[in-house]
Amino acid sequence: MTADLCAGGESHASVAPVMAFKLALIQRHCAGFDAVAAAAYAATEAARAGAELIVLPELYHAPYFCQTTDPNELDRAEPLDGPSVRAMVEVARQAEVVIAVPFYEKRAVGLYHNSLVVIGPDGARLGLYRKMHIPHDPQFEEKFYFAEGDLGFRPVNTPIGRLGPLICWDQWFPEAARLQALAGAEVLLYPTAIGWLESEKAEVGLAQLDAWKTMQRSHAIANGVFVVAVNRTGVERVGDRSIEFWGHSFVCDPSGVVIAEAGEAEETLFVDIDLTRITEQRRWWPFLRDRRIDAYQGLLSRYIDDEDP
Amino acid sequence: MTADLCAGGESHASVAPVMAFKLALIQRHCAGFDAVAAAAYAATEAARAGAELIVLPELYHAPYFCQTTDPNELDRAEPLDGPSVRAMVEVARQAEVVIAVPFYEKRAVGLYHNSLVVIGPDGARLGLYRKMHIPHDPQFEEKFYFAEGDLGFRPVNTPIGRLGPLICWDQWFPEAARLQALAGAEVLLYPTAIGWLESEKAEVGLAQLDAWKTMQRSHAIANGVFVVAVNRTGVERVGDRSIEFWGHSFVCDPSGVVIAEAGEAEETLFVDIDLTRITEQRRWWPFLRDRRIDAYQGLLSRYIDDEDP
Repeated sequence: MTADLCAGGESHASVAPVMAFKLALIQRHCAGFDAVAAAAYAATEAARAGAELIVLPELYHAPYFCQTTDPNELDRAEPLDGPSVRAMVEVARQAEVVIAVPFYEKRAVGLYHNSLVVIGPDGARLGLYRKMHIPHDPQFEEKFYFAEGDLGFRPVNTPIGRLGPLICWDQWFPEAARLQALAGAEVLLYPTAIGWLESEKAEVGLAQLDAWKTMQRSHAIANGVFVVAVNRTGVERVGDRSIEFWGHSFVCDPSGVVIAEAGEAEETLFVDIDLTRITEQRRWWPFLRDRRIDAYQGLLSRYIDDEDP
Repeated sequence: MTADLCAGGESHASVAPVMAFKLALIQRHCAGFDAVAAAAYAATEAARAGAELIVLPELYHAPYFCQTTDPNELDRAEPLDGPSVRAMVEVARQAEVVIAVPFYEKRAVGLYHNSLVVIGPDGARLGLYRKMHIPHDPQFEEKFYFAEGDLGFRPVNTPIGRLGPLICWDQWFPEAARLQALAGAEVLLYPTAIGWLESEKAEVGLAQLDAWKTMQRSHAIANGVFVVAVNRTGVERVGDRSIEFWGHSFVCDPSGVVIAEAGEAEETLFVDIDLTRITEQRRWWPFLRDRRIDAYQGLLSRYIDDEDP
């Protein structure tokens, strides 16, 4: 008890880090004529309204081109200093905000990633994440366009806190959230492109939306972190295919309670984040204390077969 | 396509395993005078009503003695063939059902586990699980009573399917659910003793209940398995302490949809389980395909520190 009180005393005596900030989720239709300029405008407006962290949807700068496998679409990829990132560097510097910028990264000819760069208030690149879990399902044919990320799950230190960037399909994998949390992430970011296929919406649309929220809320609970999901919105058509991106961007606190949620239209959602909630939550649900790391070896297996094949 | 159709044909030609069964969750107040006999009666009634798998709450045979740390309570522990298990062996054999029986296991003098034994329709022991994640929080002082399990996460083959036994606090750890699923579990079982402290219920009671359900639903979604949570119910007092066990036992399908849920009173909840839902679900959400086992090494760490301490 005494030791505990002493440690607390020391901590209060040192310079306190920023423990609260205003967040803006830019939920947008991203398939318009000049998506980059439109998003830059929305981000600038959000910063003017007080946002200190701005998060954009997955591949914010382009239509969701993964509905088909078209080699011409590979030309959309850009280097780290390409126009889609540069536009946001400009916003970050002018407005002195942190921005999480998802973009289609060209790493070499024939080697592309679904990436996210975190830009600091001085325009500097604070961290890069390359989507680790890549889907490939009808109309989400991402394995054609994106190589699997090779940077692992690394949080990014920023002036407003330690962010854990992840992207879309990652949200279905508890491993990704856990690894970011174990590395110190306080706020998980999930820029997303998820929506309904016309064939599915009537029957399972609401269940899909609920499952999507449930998974991400579970990451908040299991890890005692904030979760921020920023989805696209609007219908995008490619030939006879279409996806209705469902919006519903949301933020949940470290107990999994949704503290803000957007509708299905374009919207900038503002949320006040109080990072001291993490300490409070982990006092009551000390899950990190009780993990059985001696018994988790099987998580590194594809499957645990009864016998060798 | 052709190969796929052929494989389907072969499978249909072979002897089909049982793919559907009736499940009964025995939600009970377990602190009564003769908890074992009362639960045996309820289980027998459930079997008569057609249940083929019966699941009991955590430590079904005793008051929840972990509200305090009292060495005398250690005497409640029983060997594998003690009265709390034997009573259910008798029910299983007479009614020809599978029963998941949580009990306080005495392994040696001074070495006790929070365990679960699965009994087959012939009364044979099909599998043993020892709770792996042990809580220790105000009024849930389990580290005093239970050594950590050392059997890992092993599914149990039964005539009605492959069960993944887990217990209570395990439900907050995605690792436990994942490991059971990777080893082939089709139905995760979570006998539980969770409830409200008087000091918390008004303020955070509903949020706690919702978080509890959310976590377990997320295991169903992430792994494409059924989840069965069987909680205690009723108020139990020890001195000036009390817990109001909140009931709400439930089953969710592999998409995370709750298909049956009990109230807060004693209740036997019957649910028809169709295991073919697992195949259907994993076709659409093929998460097991896309896990990044090359990048999960950090899951075996307690924490991923910035630098060596």
